[in-house]
This record gives sequence, structure tokens and C-alpha cells, in this order.
Amino acid sequence: MTKKIFTFYMMLVLLGSYAQETIIGFTSTNAKAQQNLEKTYESLLNSNNLDSWMQRLSAEPHWVGTEFGRKNAEWIQKQFQSWGYDAKIETYDILFPYPKLRLLELTEPSTYTAKLTAVAVEGDEFTAQGDALLPSYNAFSTDGDVEAELVFVNYGVPRDYEELEKLGIDVKGKIVIAKYYGSWRGIKPKLAAEKGAIGCIIYSDPQDDGYVRGDVYPKGAFKNKTGVQRGSVMDMPTYPGDVLTPGYGATKNAKRLKREEAPTITKIPVLPISYEDAQPLLAALDGAMAPNSWRGGLPISYHIGPGPAKVHLKLEFDWKLTPAYNVIATMKGSEFPDQWVMRGNHHDAWVHGANDPISGMVALMEEARAVGELAKKGNKPKRTLVYCAWDAEEPGLIGSTEWVEDHKKELQEKVVAYINTDGNGRGFFRAGGSHSLQAMVSEVAGSVIDPQRGVSVKERRIAADLVNGGNENFELYALGSGSDYTPFIQHAGIASLNLGYGGENAGGEYHTIYDTYPHYIRFKDPGFAYGVALANTAGRITLRLANADVLPLEFQQWHNTVSGYANEIMTSCETMRSEVEKHNKMVDMNVYELASDPTKPFVKPKKKNAIPYLDFSPIQNALGSLKTTIETLSKLDISRLSNEKRKSLNQRLLKAENVLTSEEGLPRRSWYKHQIYAPGFYTGYGVKTLPGVREAVEEKNWKEAQEQIEKLAGTLKNFNKHLQEMVGLL
Amino acid sequence: MTKKIFTFYMMLVLLGSYAQETIIGFTSTNAKAQQNLEKTYESLLNSNNLDSWMQRLSAEPHWVGTEFGRKNAEWIQKQFQSWGYDAKIETYDILFPYPKLRLLELTEPSTYTAKLTAVAVEGDEFTAQGDALLPSYNAFSTDGDVEAELVFVNYGVPRDYEELEKLGIDVKGKIVIAKYYGSWRGIKPKLAAEKGAIGCIIYSDPQDDGYVRGDVYPKGAFKNKTGVQRGSVMDMPTYPGDVLTPGYGATKNAKRLKREEAPTITKIPVLPISYEDAQPLLAALDGAMAPNSWRGGLPISYHIGPGPAKVHLKLEFDWKLTPAYNVIATMKGSEFPDQWVMRGNHHDAWVHGANDPISGMVALMEEARAVGELAKKGNKPKRTLVYCAWDAEEPGLIGSTEWVEDHKKELQEKVVAYINTDGNGRGFFRAGGSHSLQAMVSEVAGSVIDPQRGVSVKERRIAADLVNGGNENFELYALGSGSDYTPFIQHAGIASLNLGYGGENAGGEYHTIYDTYPHYIRFKDPGFAYGVALANTAGRITLRLANADVLPLEFQQWHNTVSGYANEIMTSCETMRSEVEKHNKMVDMNVYELASDPTKPFVKPKKKNAIPYLDFSPIQNALGSLKTTIETLSKLDISRLSNEKRKSLNQRLLKAENVLTSEEGLPRRSWYKHQIYAPGFYTGYGVKTLPGVREAVEEKNWKEAQEQIEKLAGTLKNFNKHLQEMVGLL
Repeated sequence: MTKKIFTFYMMLVLLGSYAQETIIGFTSTNAKAQQNLEKTYESLLNSNNLDSWMQRLSAEPHWVGTEFGRKNAEWIQKQFQSWGYDAKIETYDILFPYPKLRLLELTEPSTYTAKLTAVAVEGDEFTAQGDALLPSYNAFSTDGDVEAELVFVNYGVPRDYEELEKLGIDVKGKIVIAKYYGSWRGIKPKLAAEKGAIGCIIYSDPQDDGYVRGDVYPKGAFKNKTGVQRGSVMDMPTYPGDVLTPGYGATKNAKRLKREEAPTITKIPVLPISYEDAQPLLAALDGAMAPNSWRGGLPISYHIGPGPAKVHLKLEFDWKLTPAYNVIATMKGSEFPDQWVMRGNHHDAWVHGANDPISGMVALMEEARAVGELAKKGNKPKRTLVYCAWDAEEPGLIGSTEWVEDHKKELQEKVVAYINTDGNGRGFFRAGGSHSLQAMVSEVAGSVIDPQRGVSVKERRIAADLVNGGNENFELYALGSGSDYTPFIQHAGIASLNLGYGGENAGGEYHTIYDTYPHYIRFKDPGFAYGVALANTAGRITLRLANADVLPLEFQQWHNTVSGYANEIMTSCETMRSEVEKHNKMVDMNVYELASDPTKPFVKPKKKNAIPYLDFSPIQNALGSLKTTIETLSKLDISRLSNEKRKSLNQRLLKAENVLTSEEGLPRRSWYKHQIYAPGFYTGYGVKTLPGVREAVEEKNWKEAQEQIEKLAGTLKNFNKHLQEMVGLL
Repeated sequence: MTKKIFTFYMMLVLLGSYAQETIIGFTSTNAKAQQNLEKTYESLLNSNNLDSWMQRLSAEPHWVGTEFGRKNAEWIQKQFQSWGYDAKIETYDILFPYPKLRLLELTEPSTYTAKLTAVAVEGDEFTAQGDALLPSYNAFSTDGDVEAELVFVNYGVPRDYEELEKLGIDVKGKIVIAKYYGSWRGIKPKLAAEKGAIGCIIYSDPQDDGYVRGDVYPKGAFKNKTGVQRGSVMDMPTYPGDVLTPGYGATKNAKRLKREEAPTITKIPVLPISYEDAQPLLAALDGAMAPNSWRGGLPISYHIGPGPAKVHLKLEFDWKLTPAYNVIATMKGSEFPDQWVMRGNHHDAWVHGANDPISGMVALMEEARAVGELAKKGNKPKRTLVYCAWDAEEPGLIGSTEWVEDHKKELQEKVVAYINTDGNGRGFFRAGGSHSLQAMVSEVAGSVIDPQRGVSVKERRIAADLVNGGNENFELYALGSGSDYTPFIQHAGIASLNLGYGGENAGGEYHTIYDTYPHYIRFKDPGFAYGVALANTAGRITLRLANADVLPLEFQQWHNTVSGYANEIMTSCETMRSEVEKHNKMVDMNVYELASDPTKPFVKPKKKNAIPYLDFSPIQNALGSLKTTIETLSKLDISRLSNEKRKSLNQRLLKAENVLTSEEGLPRRSWYKHQIYAPGFYTGYGVKTLPGVREAVEEKNWKEAQEQIEKLAGTLKNFNKHLQEMVGLL
């Protein structure tokens, strides 16, 4: 136990109790009771349940709108009910495109028609379900029929287009082919369209999740030559959820945009393919060799083109309104029924989804079952628990987003925190989320034993960090996007966590027909030991949040983290400045041209605008004031708080995260309200912290950067005021 | 012109002359004459000669001992004679193994017999010469007949075996398969044998010089699936040259070791193969996946083994004494006939060798021809020029080594400097060598115009350095081994240079049947512009050394460089110390085990011995004294030196490099005398500077490291004394 946590909440601990028995947010007596409760809870967890439920839930493909998906939702609802929950299904009618026509062919200089079909493999009957398997496609690609020369654009991210510019290669009027990975997939067609391309193909290079990584399925876990990653390409960094109902629930009678107006459908057609289908296309390219770092694992020389390869891409979708079934299971709190601790995991999958999402879903279910058992034995949670099984996560976090939008006001009043899980597997504990929860999560991670190594999952995670050059601190990563926490934290400003195990569960099955039960039990989490570990970890966190005397938020670690983000941005400005100076000097000296090979494409680089000095002092001063407030808060003796004051304190703690949002949201994407965390506009899932400022700096929009500095400083000042109110209470 | 070179030699320049007309080592008047001479020299160079000579010399395979090789030597001799040189052929009888039997087969779990034959390609008649092509093999592999399980060892260098140790994989009694590159090839069987392997296969992975790098021959320059790199695996870091006559010339009646005693023949059989032949072998391996960085460009999952792949390797060689023909062409100096400036390039090749070595050979010949023309017009060199065309370089620098060993005493008395060239191509000027010559080479590089970009080759080279993150200084790289400069600098202690152009001439033809004239003129140096640039550069350097009033050696840059090497070693000790401390702490914390995947091979790392503090002060003090002497030397006014004193000064300058050697040589390899530069014992070609100290530190042999510090300090003190004698003269 470090000195840092002998503060604020530790004051709740009565004299005479042992340090190791303290838990953030609990009085000494209640800490003991809570620890006993958690031990009992852990003892109730049974891996056999996870196993049999996975077999049940992943028996057939169950994307949103399928009969099997509906059955799954109803079955999950019944399970919750049997465990003592008040469980209902809330339905939204969302736009979901199913592919009617998919055609991709090489038309010049030779011909090849893409197979677009993954093969069934021996030992895995699920892969042989034929027409029941969802055809491989990218949801929310627009319809299209285009033919043009092909250009290889590596991962199709901004720095790849910078490289193409250096080589004098333009994708205007072309069809691009990009590798999966390097960014969230939706960035690839978004950026390609911005650059003038008229079509986009995405393929899985064997270097990223095929034979280069390991033996392919069925011998090993990685992608065989026919596997195709499905996935949404909706412009989620603008807003996730139903494309026709931005910012409000897609209820039956909601007003809807026309499809043609929906800004988050791609501008150009996009199709994912296997590396078997990609190889003839890539091999038919000529022109400049791709830069070294672009070259993948296919046995070919990777050229960029454009051409002589020419391809024809034709796509049509059915664009139907489809019901999405969210299962919402509630167990009313015994003391604070209007304070909710929420848990969620989606239930829809692209195909069978044994790993994604069922491995997380069954851990959540086992957690809910055990919590139900505790309740039956008289240990009802003090706060209300809400367990959610979301539908339509895969096409764009749609089930959760519509539900959050629909219930936003109530949630902002009541929800203490939202704890998300998704696919899970063998390996190391990784947690992301609101940094006010970091100290509590760290404490819980210290009390969960790793099933393989017998030390705490915190200790094992830190060991891995140290071996990989990291430090000895347990840290939450910052949340970008990629799962159902997004509407909670980014849009509603509710403190959130995303929990999971992994790192020893690598494979190439993601969003393919190979994400099946046989694959899962061989390569992902044999025996479901880490499924149980996840239920154990998430359940303890849920129970602590549910039963804490004072909500277990801690702001010193929060402050360190946010100060670190601010420093990163300031440092990046300095780095950019010296890089621009060096670049301009080298342009003046003409060294780029002199160093280039005259037989290869080369575009003489231009001088760049000097990087101005921004005034970061508003943020620095706001963080300075916050530091003082947080120090004061941490030293206050709150052990003798009246119930009334504790209630007021908890009310303010519950709303603290929301104070970090701004109603007007981020520039050009007002759906994103949080001022500390957002998915990057050009990364998609990858987080940008202090996003208003950081993205303006990265885009070299200096006017906006200064405005966003002021805005962020304002948010931080409000936060300071909010915390000062807590000080005033005590 | 920087301030640095306004010293010592600059004092030779008469007042009133312009700075830009000064040349290191020349009086003002003579500088002008020399510059005019060099301009005339440059105007005589004709690319057509290089072209037609390459066609002549690379028309047939001509490894040592071939009829065509002998004819080439005789033809080269005649050319020199026709240009006014006294040219003779000096012959040595060397042991050279030709393959009688080569068999490699996969025997388990399936069978495959390696083809061991590269295919003829369209558009290149030379590749269709069938039986006339030398079979692919590694010269100085021992005979052998072994069968064992296969283990993939990446590049087969020391750090790869460290990695295998971490994985608990032993190569004892196995046959290893290693990729080419990562070290000089001879290190691979040497290290494999030290680790207990009984056979070694080396293959060219397409990632290193095949399709991953670019289109393969004949479409592009890179290695097609059948190409095999030949090459020597003699233990050259112990001694190069004839394996039976270490340290003395392999003359007709020389005493010879028995073959069984020759320490530089490999201990285990070794065979190079193509990636077509390697793929079935590698694909048949199982066991642990190779670490990420080991994986190559073949479309397979790279496993390490051992087994289940089992291979049978059988090799027999003829082990005959073979005549090696060195062509030695002399043009007597008009003023200082007993001071020799030497130039050399080898003429033997593995197959046709259009690039290696003929591209360098024809540049040397054109240089010699133009110098001959100058002489005929009355501009005879003041010092004697010796142009050499070495035989038997490919099997182990044999021709040059035997000649240097045979004439060592005379050479140490007479040779001012040896200037080496070898394969050459389009791109950037790169020069390695004795750092006392750096200032002079830099000056010459500033006067040669790059054929593509119209700036000096120095400016272009610095541009490339800057773009690649380097600095603005022109620097010589330090010489390790890999061409015929080795006996001169490493063994005889003669100041040496190695010159060439490249970087825009990449390909996979090295030591294959594809290193032909058609390949060369398409991919290496179309129009021979860089062949002429090399003749221009090397010729100017040769002529400056030949005609200088005072030999153009400069010691301030030398001192900076050598001090830099010493600092590197001291820093590396500090780095090792903190790494060992960190490692031991992590072992104590057991983080390696906690971070490891229990389902994968893992050997718990042991604590390492703490790194002791060495006493570097003897080197530091010696370098300190040298700094003072060199500063004094650089400030002395030598413009009014008598001829007698100038002669004495030149005599001492001529011998300066030799003072940097020690007769007893390096530990365990006394052939290597130089104390500043040596090829690494475990890198082969790659240089180790201050090798006695550096290698002892790298091997953590602290006792020897301290001894070598004292020894190096003694060498530096001797050098200081030698330079002080020059000061005394002036």
C-alpha cells in the first residue's frame, strides 16, 4: 500500500484497522464486509457456465436482425429473470444494410474475379454453415458501381497519403487498396474519398494476422488465405449509432434523416477481401515500389501503381430498418436505488462471434448470476445494478448509442459509472477508462489472482509492462472508441471503464467465419479461466461501486494523468517546431533533391509554415488551481461525515465526470462532448486526449488550437469549482 | 574550406594564393599545377572503355584456376604494358576447393531434394552457359556427410543464439539453417559449430534481396527464387589468404600446413541454397514460432524447430593447389621512386562478376590508362605507382594476402598508401580507410562532380547523410574486412582506402549467375557514369598522393575520430552496467517469468555478473598527450622546410600508420596487427574499432580488457612519440 492512497478515502478507515484491509470508499467495518462479500462472490463463479452459454449463444450466426439474434436476446433476458433481475428488452428500429450484390474483378492487364468466400475447415463444423454465414462486407459502405486503375495505399492513413504525395502519386479517380490495421477500418474509405478516390478495397495482409504471425486456421489461430474481416465503416468519429437518428433514440416514430442525407455512410463503395483475393490484384500493380515499411507478407513485390491493374467494384445493399434488441436487466439497490452502477456487453456478432462478443457476454452473465445469488442470500447491492446486453454493436455501437441517447437525461442523473466488456481471452489485465477510477481499479486488480501465474493480475500486468520497457505504475489507458462505452463516456459524460484480458490469445479470426467455439477453446481461453477472471474483476468493481460508502473516485492520479496529456501536447509543439525548422533548412540546402534517386519518382518538398507559439497558460493555470484543490480534498478528514453530507458528496462525485464535458461538443462533431477523451477524427478507435486542443495542433489549425485551449481551460475551471464545492461540504 | 584545415599543410601555401586553390600537401604553385593535371586527367576518361572491357572480362565465368581467369590476367597485363607500365604476373599456389559432390535433401517428415541450380533467364545469354557456371557452394566448407534435425537460427549471429537460449532451444547435434545477411557469411558456420551444430545451410531470404526488395531478375534486379549466393566461409577473422600458409607467401616451395591442421577451414559442412530450395525445408519445421524480427518474406509461418524436419547434407570438394595470378603493373616515380602509391582491385569472380569485381576493375584500368597518357605527355608521377589486379579475392582475399605477406618488409618501407576498389555502381560516394587520409579524401570528393546531380560527390553524399539523420561532416568509415585492403592495413599497417559509389544500384545478383553484363548495364550503372566517377575520384587521390610535396596526412580529424571510438567503448560500459542492474532487478522481481506465456517455451533468465569499472585513464591520457602534439604539429610553419627535412618528414609520415600496429597482434589472432581497426571476430566483415579493448569488453573478459587498454595506450604513446619526432624536425 503506497502513501498516495493513505488520503481522503483512507480517512474513512477507523483507527486500529489494518492498512491492508482498507478499500477506497469504504469505512473499515464496511471494507471487511465488502472483502468477505467479494470472496463469496468469487467462490460462486463457475467456468462451466461460460462454456455452455458460449456454445448456446455462438451456435449460429447472429448479426442484428437475424432470427437467432432475436432468440439470443430473449434467452439472455430469461436468464437474467431467473437470477432475480427485472429484465426487459428495449427495441430500436435502426437502418442496417445487408449486401444484395458484391462484385470485384480485375479487368486489366489480366482478369480475375474475387471469390469473396471463406472456406469451411476440417474440425470446425460451424464454418460449414454455408448460406447461413453473413457474406463478407463493410457495413455502411454506400452502393456503387465503379471501375478504375488500382493504387496501393498501405494502411490508407494520413501519413500514407503524405508518402504518396512525396512520390507524386494521386489517387483521384482511382480505386485504392488498403491493408487492414494501422487505424480503425472506417478511416480508410473516409480518407480515400477525401483524397478523390472512387472506391476502396480493404484486405488482410498475412503480415498482420495471417501466416506471418503464426500457423493459420485450422492448424493455428491465424487467418488462412480465405478469411475476411467484416466490419462497419460508418463514420463513427462523427457520430456512432443509427445513421438516421443522430443524437436521439431510433424509436419507432422518431424523425429520421433521409438515407441520402446521412453523413456517416461512406462516400465511396468499400469492400473487404481475403489475401487470396488480394494477391492477384496487388501482383498486377506496377510503378514505384512501395516503401519498405509498406510491404506485407505476400510473396510478391509490392508496387504502388496506379495501374496497370484496373478493377471493377460493384456493391448493392438492401438498406432496411431492422429491430435491435437491447436486454436491460435491473436489480434495485437496497439503499440508493436512484444511483445506478451499469454493466454492459454486446450480444450481436458478425458471424458466430464466439470471441467477439460472446466471450465477454458470458463473463458478464456469470457475474450477474453470482450477484443474483448473493442477493438471494441477503446481500443485495446498496446501489441499483443495471446489466445490459446490447444489440447492433458491430455495425456501429448502435444498440447502446440509441439507448443512451434515448435515456440520456436520466442516465446523467443516476449513473455512477458504466463498466464495459467485450471479447476476452488469455493473458494480461488491461483496463481503460476515466482516470478518477484508476486508484480503485488498481486496488481491485491487486486482489484478483491470475489463473496461470498465481500472483495478482496487477502484478502480472506490471511485470509485462516492465519487460516491454514500461514503468511500475498501474495505469488505465484512455478510452477512444470501439465498443459500447462510447455513448456513455463520450456523449453522456458518464464515468466509464472498459475491462478485459488478452495478449496471449492472438489470432486472425476477428470478424471472420472462424470466430467459433472450436477456435475459441483451442486458442483464446482454454477452460475459460480468463473468462472467470474477467467476471471476478468486473464483478468486484461493480460491487465496490455499488456498496461504497463514498464513491471511490480519486483525483490525484487523475490530475497526474491529465497534466501528462497537456505536457505531451506542449512538447509536441516544440518537436514540430524544430522539425519544421530542420525541414526548411534542408529545403533551402536542396538536400532532399540531391539525396534522391533521379530514376525514381520524387516531388521536391516545399517549405512549411513556421510553428507559432501558443499560449498554454490558461490550461497550466487551471491545472495548477486544480492541483491545490485536489490536495486539499485529499487531506480533509471526512470520517465523521453525516449521512446527509455523505449523500451530497456522493451526488457531486457521481456528476464529476459530466463536468468534464461541454454541451457544444468538439468542433465539427458536436455529438462528442467529453473534453478529455475522444476517438481521433483520423484514427477512428485510437484515442486523442484533450481532443479539442490536440487535434487542432495536429491539423496545424492554430486559431482553433488557441480557442480550444481557452475552452479546455474553462472546462477545467468548472471542474475545479465542482471539486471546491465538495471541499466546501466537508 | 573550414578553419580546421588552415593548419600544418596549409602553411605550405605561399602568401597571396587563394584559399580555394590550396590542396593539402602542396605548395601553392604545385597545387595549381596539380589541379590542372587532374583536370586534364579527368578529360581523358572515357566510359566506352569501361563498357567494352567489362564485356571482355565478364564474358565467361572466371574464378581462380579457370582458363578464362588466366586469360583475363594475361590480357590485363598486356593492357598495362600497352599504357607504359612495367607489368608482370606474380603467381602463388593456393589451396582452392572445387565441389565434387553437393547433396541436400529433406528426409522427414516429407522428402525433397534441393535443386541447387539457378535457371537461365530470357534476355541474358550468360545465364545459359550451363556446366561452365560454377556450382553454388561455400568455399572452405569442410567435407561432410551429416543427417540431423533442422533448426532455424535466423541470421545465425551471436544475438540469435542468445534468443534461442531464452527459448530453451539447443542446436547441438542439429543442422542449422540461417539466412544470408546480418553478418559476413563465414560467421554462420563458425558460430554454429561452436554451439555444437553438425551442419549449416545458408539461404537467401526474399526479404533480404529477393521479391520483397523489388522485382526479380530478369524483370528487375533482385534475386529470383533460384539464385544462390556463392562465397567463402573461410575463418577470415582469424587470418585471410591461403589456408595452408598463414603469415607468409604461398610460393611454390613454401612450407605448407596439412589440410587437416588448417584452422580457417570450417569445422562443419556448409552449403548455400536458393529460397526455392529453402522453402520446403523451412515449411517442414514446427515447434516455437520464430521471433517476429526473424520472420522473412516466404509465404510460410517461420518456426524454429528442431524438427520434425530432418535433412541430409553431403559435401565433397577436390582440395587442389591452384595457381593464383596477380597482375602487378608499375610506373616508376620521377622524383621518389622508392615511395609507392598502390592501387588495387581483384579480377577473379565467382561467376561472370560483371559487378563484382569487374565494374571496379575497369574503372581502375581506365584510371591507369589515363595516368599512362599523362605520363606519355610528360606528366610522370613523382612517386612510383603500382596498379594491381588481384586473383583469388573471392575465396578469401588470397591473391592480395599472399602477395602482401610475401613482400611485407619492402611494402612497409615503401608504400605511402594502398587504395582499393571493388564492385561499383550508381549512387553516392562512400569511402573507408585510415582517418589520417580523411581530410585529403574530403577535399578530392569536393572536386569530383556527381554525374546525375551536377554538384560535388561530397555535397551529394552529405545531402544523403542529412536526409538519413546524419551530420554535415564528410567522414571515412572504418575498415573491417571484405576486400583486398585487408592485408595492407590490418596486417602490414599501411595506410589504406576503400572507394566506391553505390546506393542506387541495389540488386540480388551478388555472387550469383545473374551478375552479368546485361544485368549490370540495366540496373547497376547504365552508361558507366559512376565507373568514370570512380576512376576520376580514385585517380585524383592517387595522383595527389603521388605528387604531394608533403604527404597529405592530417591528424586532427584522426584524433577526433579515435577519441570518438574510445568514448563509444566507455559509454558502452556504462550502458552495459545499467542494463545489467536493471536485468538483475527484474530477475529478483521475477517479472520475466510473470510476463511470459506459460504455453510457450521459456527459460528463466539468470542474474548477470555486475559490470566492473575499468581504468580507461591510460587511453585518455595518451589521447590527451596526442592532442597537444597534433595541435603543435598543425601550427608549425613548414613552408620553409629544406628538401632534406621534407624528405625526413615524408619518411615519417609514410610510416605513421605502421606505428599504430603491434607485432604481437590481437589476442587469439596475431595476423591482425592494427590496434585501431579490425574486422570483428564475430562479425567477419564488420569493423571493430580499437578492437583489442572493444572485443574484450563485448565478451566481458575484463582482465583482457584492462590489458588491452594498457596495450592500446602503449601504441598511442608510440604514435605520439612518432609525431613528436616530426615536430622535432621542423
